[in-house]
This record gives sequence, structure tokens and C-alpha cells, in this order.
Amino acid sequence: MAGQLAERGHVLIGQSGGPTAVINASLVGAIHEAQRLDAVDGIYGALNGIEGALARRIIDLRRESAATLQALLHTPSAALGSCRYKLQPEDPARAVNLMRELGIRYFLYIGGNDSADTAHRVAQAAEEMGYDLRVIGIPKTIDNDLPVTDHCPGYGSAARFIAMMTQDSARNTEAMPEHYPVKIIEVMGRYAGWLAAAAALGRQKPEDAPHLIYMPEYAFDPNDFLSRVRATVRQRSYCVVVVAEHLADAAGRQLGEAMAQGVDAFGHPLVAGVAQTLVDLVRSELGMRARFDKPGDMQRMSTMHISATDRDEAYQAGRMALRYAVRGVTGKMVTLVRTNGPRYACETGLADLERIANEQKLMPANYVTPDGVNVTPAFLDYVRPLIGDPLPQHATLRGERLQ
Amino acid sequence: MAGQLAERGHVLIGQSGGPTAVINASLVGAIHEAQRLDAVDGIYGALNGIEGALARRIIDLRRESAATLQALLHTPSAALGSCRYKLQPEDPARAVNLMRELGIRYFLYIGGNDSADTAHRVAQAAEEMGYDLRVIGIPKTIDNDLPVTDHCPGYGSAARFIAMMTQDSARNTEAMPEHYPVKIIEVMGRYAGWLAAAAALGRQKPEDAPHLIYMPEYAFDPNDFLSRVRATVRQRSYCVVVVAEHLADAAGRQLGEAMAQGVDAFGHPLVAGVAQTLVDLVRSELGMRARFDKPGDMQRMSTMHISATDRDEAYQAGRMALRYAVRGVTGKMVTLVRTNGPRYACETGLADLERIANEQKLMPANYVTPDGVNVTPAFLDYVRPLIGDPLPQHATLRGERLQ
Repeated sequence: MAGQLAERGHVLIGQSGGPTAVINASLVGAIHEAQRLDAVDGIYGALNGIEGALARRIIDLRRESAATLQALLHTPSAALGSCRYKLQPEDPARAVNLMRELGIRYFLYIGGNDSADTAHRVAQAAEEMGYDLRVIGIPKTIDNDLPVTDHCPGYGSAARFIAMMTQDSARNTEAMPEHYPVKIIEVMGRYAGWLAAAAALGRQKPEDAPHLIYMPEYAFDPNDFLSRVRATVRQRSYCVVVVAEHLADAAGRQLGEAMAQGVDAFGHPLVAGVAQTLVDLVRSELGMRARFDKPGDMQRMSTMHISATDRDEAYQAGRMALRYAVRGVTGKMVTLVRTNGPRYACETGLADLERIANEQKLMPANYVTPDGVNVTPAFLDYVRPLIGDPLPQHATLRGERLQ
Repeated sequence: MAGQLAERGHVLIGQSGGPTAVINASLVGAIHEAQRLDAVDGIYGALNGIEGALARRIIDLRRESAATLQALLHTPSAALGSCRYKLQPEDPARAVNLMRELGIRYFLYIGGNDSADTAHRVAQAAEEMGYDLRVIGIPKTIDNDLPVTDHCPGYGSAARFIAMMTQDSARNTEAMPEHYPVKIIEVMGRYAGWLAAAAALGRQKPEDAPHLIYMPEYAFDPNDFLSRVRATVRQRSYCVVVVAEHLADAAGRQLGEAMAQGVDAFGHPLVAGVAQTLVDLVRSELGMRARFDKPGDMQRMSTMHISATDRDEAYQAGRMALRYAVRGVTGKMVTLVRTNGPRYACETGLADLERIANEQKLMPANYVTPDGVNVTPAFLDYVRPLIGDPLPQHATLRGERLQ
């Protein structure tokens, strides 16, 4: 790790991977910090992440107005554009050469596991090439599957969306259970159940939806699923099931695999159709009407569901990333560290980019009930502070019957 | 039409059909008016609409607190429960006998076309049976397909959701067009394009999504669709398409008909799969990656997207329904009448329930561009006041390139 740089340098910031509701808050945090720090001269933005940087698609962020930066705090998605680009063998050296040429001393990369891998390789190349570049990753993913960090910026807002929308949508089924008693809601999360689990936060009463939650960490058993759906409909007259986008049976076969459409640049399979598969299963095996909601990309970035806590933490992560870099840190990702105490609070820490790139944090066993289809109070305690303000509560009639 | 009743009578209120974000506001409006009017004694609610009323599942709404009623103004879905029940031949007379027995003089039914049909038959039966019952329909449908009324309570909030969510979701595609350049968003609306068209309201710049809007009023031509998608991707690098849940080709064949799952109690086909069908078409014919969002029931009733205008009008429609009934009106539905003038304003009027039951209001030709895949400024002027407060605006970087 190098110490304080003798001369001023420029910072280059990029956004990568699936955008979130608060990834721009991290960008703004970094820009604000850069404006404050004497060590930083030019403030550059890479359009579409490392892919754009390699193509010299770089903009001057000092030309953006204070009002634009302020408004970006409330603007979801990646203002710089994003990418899912896997580095080619020659790319890290090319990136370092470009940065040397442009006088870039600080490289901040906002993203998830794959982006940490990109940042790690660039940091390695800089070291090998003897160029004093400080590379810091800023965590970002709605999937919440990065190791070390307590949670990931972007998750709290997506969790808020999923909790509220499950409750909103379930009210429709509850109001008219005869019409179609079974509803499947398919959410994202890659191979982790953090997002599906967050649906439980919307419950106002214990009997509220979601009645069943299926997470990728547990093998999916169609017969068990069907018997639970049948039992829930018998008991409550309707059943709302939240399912992760990736579910596999005990043999490892992906649900809806027949509808798979290939793999992305990192080799992750692109699968469609878990919800449709389960709807078909309920119809054919239980003879019940079923429908599905699939919010899709809406859950990444709903303007109306941004968690203020999530936004503030994303902003702080951006600020601290640059502060760490100027202090001489490189090859690390900023982490969020929950402090002990009666009230929720978070500080920032650091973790090796290499570790972030190669590990996936799944839902721990103590966050899931033994039956595998619900979450524990410990999980709710973990996630509740992340979604910001308390959720609006729905009123219900006391409904005193006549006579 | 009968005049003022000599004696006080009870009012029975029911909610029917697909719930909305503001159907409870109509209920509260009617209850508040009932509390105010000397002519009204008991305030009763039918659980699950006419189906529950016939089963004597009736509650005493005077037992609900003022705080509950206030909170219901912000609670989506049908607090009384709803139904999709088609009256059997003997049901209207049964309903009238029940109301006579219970001393119910006013029957307010909140719903869409099918609910207007129910209310109309009960009104007819009362007249034939010589019972002085005043039956008033209160309009409600996110589909906005009721005739006579300028628009329907419930539509403004759903339109607000669709406009914002299309914009939010499209930002994701815009940020990373390489990943999957084509996105299909499937919205509701039965056989009318009002909801799909509302997506256009979210555009902040002319080039913003949605780039194509497919409404049920126009025959769907797969080849034309594919060539427009290809051209849009070529021009903008991505293409976001909003499609109605029901699309048919020139021969009348429903898109995704293979996945139809029967009909509901009113004979409307329950179809799934327009979005999936189009995604498959884009993949196989254009070789482009495509995904879909299907918000499903979330669009009916998102707590965070309630239009204050929509809520206020729903409330007024509920109040006026009872006021008209007490004045002696029966067999009518309350309508919303847009007043002429530079600022948007609405009054209430009346229309025959029979007409509401038997007509469907589709998007008029002057609201759709000649190519059939976009809306006109006239439509935007029509819909803009209905969604309440101006939509939050997303910031964009000016993005001045280096050097």
C-alpha cells in the first residue's frame, strides 16, 4: 500500500453491474468528497463502467451542477451507465496504461461481486506495472450477497419495494380469494434468498402474506410445495407465495430450466419462468386458479420506495471510498459495519477486493425457519433498519356482524 | 323515480370487481355522508359484495372508528372484500327481499361494468316488486373502460403507477443496453388501452421509454412489431415496449392464447402470457435478448402511487351516490364530468346503470397516433390531471466528454 501521494491526482469513478435505486448516491458521495479534498484534481466518470473506460468514454464530472448532483440522490439507476463486461486478459494493463496517461491516481468502482473482480485485477495490474493507483470498490447490489459487509447499498430499497408490493398485491387476493386463490410473486436475488425473505417485512398481522417464501438456498420439493399451498388455502382461503428467481430441486435441476436463455458474460445462467412454472403446477396438480406477478426490473429501482437509510449509507460508502484511497488504501472494498447498541447505526470498514470477488453470502440458517419456507425474528431484526422509515400501515375494518 | 322517503332507512354498501387503490375512499365517502344525513339510519357493509349480501354476511359500519375511516383513505384494496359473482336468475328478487326484511332503503354498489349490471338488476327487481329501494352505482375500475363518465376512480392511481414504473424500469435497460436491449412490460386494462397508454406519461424526454405501446384496440401484427423493435434498438440501442394484457391479431386470435386458462364467471377469458410470447418472438426472430416485467396486481393498488386527485374523486363519488339516493334517484351510476376551463376540475353527474353495464369505452382514435403504437398530446392532456401531483423527475448528467 502506498502512502499519501506527493502530487495531486485525478479520480475516475465507474458504475457496474445491475443498477439500483441508490447507486447514484454513492457516485454523488464520491464527487462531493472529491470536491472537498485537496489531493484530488480532476473528477472523471467512466460511461458504462470499465467497458466505457477502456474505450475512453470518459466525462468531466466537475461540469455537473450542484443541483444535478442533489437531484441524483433521488434518481435511481446508474447515471453514468453500467456494464456487465468480463475483463479480457489484456484489459487490466490497458486500463492502467490509460489511467497513467490521463493522470488518474484514484479509481473507484461501484458494483457487486463481478465488479470487485474487475477492480481487483486492475489494482493487481497497477502494482505489477509499478503505477501508484489506488483502487477502491464501493459495494452495490440489491441481491445483498457480498461477503464481509453487513449488508449492501441497494438492498434496503429493493427490500422496501418487495415488502410493500407483496403486501399491496396480496390485498387483492385477500379481497377476492374465490377468483384466484393462489398468487406467486417472483423476485430477484441471484442465488441468495435475501430479497425473497424481505417480503416478510410487509406483514402487519401474523396471518398476512407472504404465506410461503422459497429461497434458493433450499432445495425445492414440488410435492411439499403443493401440499403447503393446499393447506394454506384451506386455512386462509388464499395463499401468496414469494419465490426467488432461481430455485432448484434436490438434484440441482433449475425450476423452469426449459426456458433458460443462455448465460451472461460471467457465465451466470439467464433463466426465466419460475413463477409461470409454479402457476402451471398449481393449476394442473391442485386444480386451483393461480396467477403471478413478476415485478422484474422495477424492484431494482422504484423511485417511490427508496430507503433513506439505504441512500445515506450508499452516499457515505462513496465518500469513504475516496477518503480511504487518498489515505493510501488500495485493493479494498468499503464495507458497512453494524455497530453494537440498542439503536441501529453503521460505520464503514474495509475488505479485500479479492475476497469479495470470490465469495457469496447466502442467508444463514438462523434467519430461516426449520421448515425452510419462512424467516425468523432474527432476520426481521437484521433487515428492518435497512428499509428506512416504518412502512405505511393498512387499515382493516373491525367488521362487527349485523345482529 | 321515487321522491323523498317518509321514514328513515338503512344504507347497504358493497364493493365489487377488481379492487383498486381508492375503492375504499368511495366507501368512506358514502359512510361520511350517511353519518351526516338525517334520512339514513343504519350504515351496513356487505362483505364480498352481492355474493356476501345474499349470504347475509353484513357488517355494521357505524361500529368503525373515525380513525379507521381516515386510515382507509390511504389503504388500497377493498376493505369489505370483493367478488366476481354473476347473478343467478333468482338472485335479484332474493336481494330485494333481504333488503326489505332488513329495512335497507339505499343500496350503493361500487364497481365496474359487471357490477353495474348487478346493481341494475337489483334496481329492476325492486321496482317490479314494489319496494322503494334506491340503487346507485359508484364507478370503479383501473381499466377506465366505463362509458359516459369522463374517467373512472381507480384509473388515475393505476396510471400513476404504470407511468412511474415504466420509467423506473426503463432506466435499468437504458443504463446497460448491451445486457438485454429489449424489455416488454405487460399491463392490465381488459380490452381497452387506457392503462397501457398511461405509460407515456412517464417520459421526461421525447426519446424516453416507452418506445412502443400496444393497445388492444389495434390488431397486433408480429412482423410490424419486430421491425419496429429492430429499428428502435438500432436508433436508441434499446427498446422498451408496453403491451396490454389482451392483444389479438387481425384474425382475432389472442396473443398467447395457447396459455389461456378458461373464463371467469362473466365469460371473460383469463389469458396469461402476452409478455412471454413477445419475449420469445424477439429472441427467436431478432436474436436479441429480451426480458419482461409483469407487475400484475401491484398495478391495481400500490400504496405509494395513490393519486390524491383520484382519491378525492373516489371519495366525492361515494358521497354523491348517497346524496342522489336520498334525493330519490335510483338505477343510476354516478359519473365524473370534467368541467370546461383552463384548470382541471370535475363535477358529478348521473348515467343509467343499464348503459354502463352494456357499453365499453375504448381509446378514441384521436388519442392514438396514426401508426397505432403511441399516444397523442390530446391523450396526455386528458390523463395528466388524473394522476395527481406531478411525477418526480429523474436527473441526468450533462456528460461533457473529456478533452
